[in-house]
Amino acid sequence: MGKYILLTEGPDAKGLIFHVTSVLFEYGCNILKQSEYVSPDKHFYMRTEFEHPGSFEKEALLEALKSRITDPLFHFKLDTLQKKNIVILCTKEHHCLSEILVRNWFGEINANVLGVISNHKTLQPFVEKFGLPFHAIEAEGLSREEHEAKVLEILSSYSADYLVLAKYMRILSPEFIRRYPNKIINIHHSFLPAFVGAQPYKQAYDRGVKIIGATAHFVTDQLDQGPIIAQDTKEIDHRYSASDMARDGREVETRVLLKALEWVFSDRVFIYGNKTVIL
Amino acid sequence: MGKYILLTEGPDAKGLIFHVTSVLFEYGCNILKQSEYVSPDKHFYMRTEFEHPGSFEKEALLEALKSRITDPLFHFKLDTLQKKNIVILCTKEHHCLSEILVRNWFGEINANVLGVISNHKTLQPFVEKFGLPFHAIEAEGLSREEHEAKVLEILSSYSADYLVLAKYMRILSPEFIRRYPNKIINIHHSFLPAFVGAQPYKQAYDRGVKIIGATAHFVTDQLDQGPIIAQDTKEIDHRYSASDMARDGREVETRVLLKALEWVFSDRVFIYGNKTVIL
Amino acid sequence: MGKYILLTEGPDAKGLIFHVTSVLFEYGCNILKQSEYVSPDKHFYMRTEFEHPGSFEKEALLEALKSRITDPLFHFKLDTLQKKNIVILCTKEHHCLSEILVRNWFGEINANVLGVISNHKTLQPFVEKFGLPFHAIEAEGLSREEHEAKVLEILSSYSADYLVLAKYMRILSPEFIRRYPNKIINIHHSFLPAFVGAQPYKQAYDRGVKIIGATAHFVTDQLDQGPIIAQDTKEIDHRYSASDMARDGREVETRVLLKALEWVFSDRVFIYGNKTVIL
Amino acid sequence: MGKYILLTEGPDAKGLIFHVTSVLFEYGCNILKQSEYVSPDKHFYMRTEFEHPGSFEKEALLEALKSRITDPLFHFKLDTLQKKNIVILCTKEHHCLSEILVRNWFGEINANVLGVISNHKTLQPFVEKFGLPFHAIEAEGLSREEHEAKVLEILSSYSADYLVLAKYMRILSPEFIRRYPNKIINIHHSFLPAFVGAQPYKQAYDRGVKIIGATAHFVTDQLDQGPIIAQDTKEIDHRYSASDMARDGREVETRVLLKALEWVFSDRVFIYGNKTVIL
Repeated sequence: MGKYILLTEGPDAKGLIFHVTSVLFEYGCNILKQSEYVSPDKHFYMRTEFEHPGSFEKEALLEALKSRITDPLFHFKLDTLQKKNIVILCTKEHHCLSEILVRNWFGEINANVLGVISNHKTLQPFVEKFGLPFHAIEAEGLSREEHEAKVLEILSSYSADYLVLAKYMRILSPEFIRRYPNKIINIHHSFLPAFVGAQPYKQAYDRGVKIIGATAHFVTDQLDQGPIIAQDTKEIDHRYSASDMARDGREVETRVLLKALEWVFSDRVFIYGNKTVIL
Repeated sequence: MGKYILLTEGPDAKGLIFHVTSVLFEYGCNILKQSEYVSPDKHFYMRTEFEHPGSFEKEALLEALKSRITDPLFHFKLDTLQKKNIVILCTKEHHCLSEILVRNWFGEINANVLGVISNHKTLQPFVEKFGLPFHAIEAEGLSREEHEAKVLEILSSYSADYLVLAKYMRILSPEFIRRYPNKIINIHHSFLPAFVGAQPYKQAYDRGVKIIGATAHFVTDQLDQGPIIAQDTKEIDHRYSASDMARDGREVETRVLLKALEWVFSDRVFIYGNKTVIL
Repeated sequence: MGKYILLTEGPDAKGLIFHVTSVLFEYGCNILKQSEYVSPDKHFYMRTEFEHPGSFEKEALLEALKSRITDPLFHFKLDTLQKKNIVILCTKEHHCLSEILVRNWFGEINANVLGVISNHKTLQPFVEKFGLPFHAIEAEGLSREEHEAKVLEILSSYSADYLVLAKYMRILSPEFIRRYPNKIINIHHSFLPAFVGAQPYKQAYDRGVKIIGATAHFVTDQLDQGPIIAQDTKEIDHRYSASDMARDGREVETRVLLKALEWVFSDRVFIYGNKTVIL
Repeated sequence: MGKYILLTEGPDAKGLIFHVTSVLFEYGCNILKQSEYVSPDKHFYMRTEFEHPGSFEKEALLEALKSRITDPLFHFKLDTLQKKNIVILCTKEHHCLSEILVRNWFGEINANVLGVISNHKTLQPFVEKFGLPFHAIEAEGLSREEHEAKVLEILSSYSADYLVLAKYMRILSPEFIRRYPNKIINIHHSFLPAFVGAQPYKQAYDRGVKIIGATAHFVTDQLDQGPIIAQDTKEIDHRYSASDMARDGREVETRVLLKALEWVFSDRVFIYGNKTVIL
């Protein structure tokens, strides 16, 4: 009994749910879960999880959908739920990385970690415990272009579906980012759009906020402006120094990044302009 | 342009979403929002919000649904979103009552408060500010049966869709409750099933818990055992006395009760055995 | 048996707790609760709640403190817990106002509401239910100076300890604000410093955030930059329009403002540069 | 510059804070942080963190305290903050264990993990990555007494300050527990006192709750009745099966256990009857 995910996206029109469900019915599929959303500017998104008792012609089913919903702006994506191949970039802090590696080792995330790249050697002993390749590409004495060229060279040896920036403390160039459109996921240690850029906890301390937060987002060539996937916050008080915030913020960062990865890796995230729709 | 809600419930089968959406499509309806749920014991629940540009025969549409989904165990309910008529029962504490009355006065809940019944006179001056009838039925010297008979007499003069127990500190008899099956909503001041019965904050204090909570539920003839609609909690610490918990708990109780009422009054709550499904 | 609050503030030094507690001991006072904080730049804050079985010379006790802690930069404030006199400013939205008025009517906040000023008549019928003066000062056809002059005239007839901006949708001039240094408390409908200025929910919607929030702060002549007293947030998702955010945000705004008022009105809030220390 | 922690506990009386701070002042100590609590039955608890620029006679300071606070029921504990030696007991689930091991490896908890004992071999490969002894003591074919005797034998080879039950799915006998009074910390996967005993998520599913939770507590010979150290909860909805609850509950369990350990390992937790006071 196979389990499939169908993603449907296009300009809103009457009867869309009916058309999709009638094709699935004709093909003998049983819908397990379905969610849909229509944006204020009338764009339709739907995610349908279904099972089929035997086998069916995937291409034929897609053709049937296209013959019922003929608008050429419509996109259909149909597949079984595939494990994503990922490469992690990090610097010196371990908390996001270690959570991913532990869950990966126990088979609890829908991904295969292919390798880890860092601009420091700090985390090498930890990563190697898990039998994963660790690539230390130190930035000392290199221009950003030179450093990124070396990172890209490593990346070219992998076939990664996603790059995960697990507290990677360098800003990627627009050229780098454009090679991975909607494929780079970052964790930023503030509730964006507050405290964009460097040292958000220092900024938060200076402003005297009573909550701190973290934001997982897709990376675009606008710094910290990409589509937000997940956010969460934590109450603090005046007793917190910037480094206390950093310490307690780690738990929020880890939780938010892992939630975002879970959603992305289970094909639940649509990108809609500069926003995400999570079905 | 009318807006309608269709509730569908019955034994799960293949093609249910297809059948419902195809009938709505034939009748020229446009689905705005749809959610469905299939329970582990294969019961299907669906709530569909749709609009229709003109008018249609409601009975004919329901007949069309029944001719497509012929299982006699299926139930369909189709209506525009109606304001519910409610009567509130309370004792001496005002916080849940006052939130309902204020929102009712400003037209912010999908209900009409018909009147307020209390076993004490305490809240009469407050209720009368809002031009609502207040019925003080004191229990002194009366048996439970006698007291409830008087309450029922008042209730018989109203045509209430729901009774809301807004911190009504008396236990209703099974006979009373059976007259209002799934129509009485209570707020209990603990995270049920912890601290069933009297003085839950006192019980919580004695146990030394670090969180307190509140539970909104339908009332059945099993004390504090009815289907839970909404719950929430709040962190506390050792400094809280039982009365500190009661004071801080009021905000949680109010929030939880109002959330439950919002869901029930917008036809989002199905009762499923001793549980609720909220679509 | 009287209950007193002593606030102590000044440059940190060794023995401060010892000096204060020894004077209280000499005067026969029994400490009920004490909290202190030393900021990173070595400023000391302490709040001491104590009781005394009989009576004592308040001035003598303060003199004794000054003879023990001789640094002239030290401030001591000693009093019983007094109810604060407040005037509320609002516009058309009722939720923060109504919560304050209801709690005030039931004697649940440590304040007396003297009156309500609004730039619209909308809330007049509600305020008058509670027997409170309502001053509608419409801004139509008036310059900001003219409008504020009329507001100040009304305010001059009251002796207010604090002005509470309960969703007052006008920006006060620096001249106005300077008349009430650290005496104006505002509720802003975002987690500052995100979304400063007008229409924060619209800004939040455009940015695609997954949490919304509210911030209670003292008003300074820098728009939305004053010391933050309390903040809280709420998770949302892509289904929220800007007006859905506004609707669900009301509960957060109300909760945050009331928490801030509770702290300020119980003499727990010190202002420390552009931050607050809450003991 | 040494940093010390003084814990003071005994029957409440006037002047206690004064007496303690005056002794510390005489000895040239500088208080960094101090918190105190007086229980409703008049028991006094205080935790004082202080530093001393040079060295002092610890015993002399304690004697000075005893000469000022002469009630023989008073207890004083004075020390630098010591790393606790711990042994972890687990079964098959890794999430609490792995979080402790990772933080231990990076030196982020105030403890040394001496070893891990389990009634299954499942987690052996993971534990051994961190170079720690893993003792698999399978229970098959053994009585509880026999199994515990083997566990105790292993434990006798360590000098553990605390035993941490990181999802150890066996009930310890009262005889076992009495050997480690207030030294065994357990994580229970419900918001106690709801769902005591086996399969709390199954119980929670059957009851139809809308929140799940976790509780870290000291183990006493009354099952799941020991003093609660920390609790937290998470919202769920009708879509959660018992195993979904278990999966999402892991994050809450881990967070709650780690918070409890942090408090216990930094000498912040007093036990007060069946409750905890956390200063």
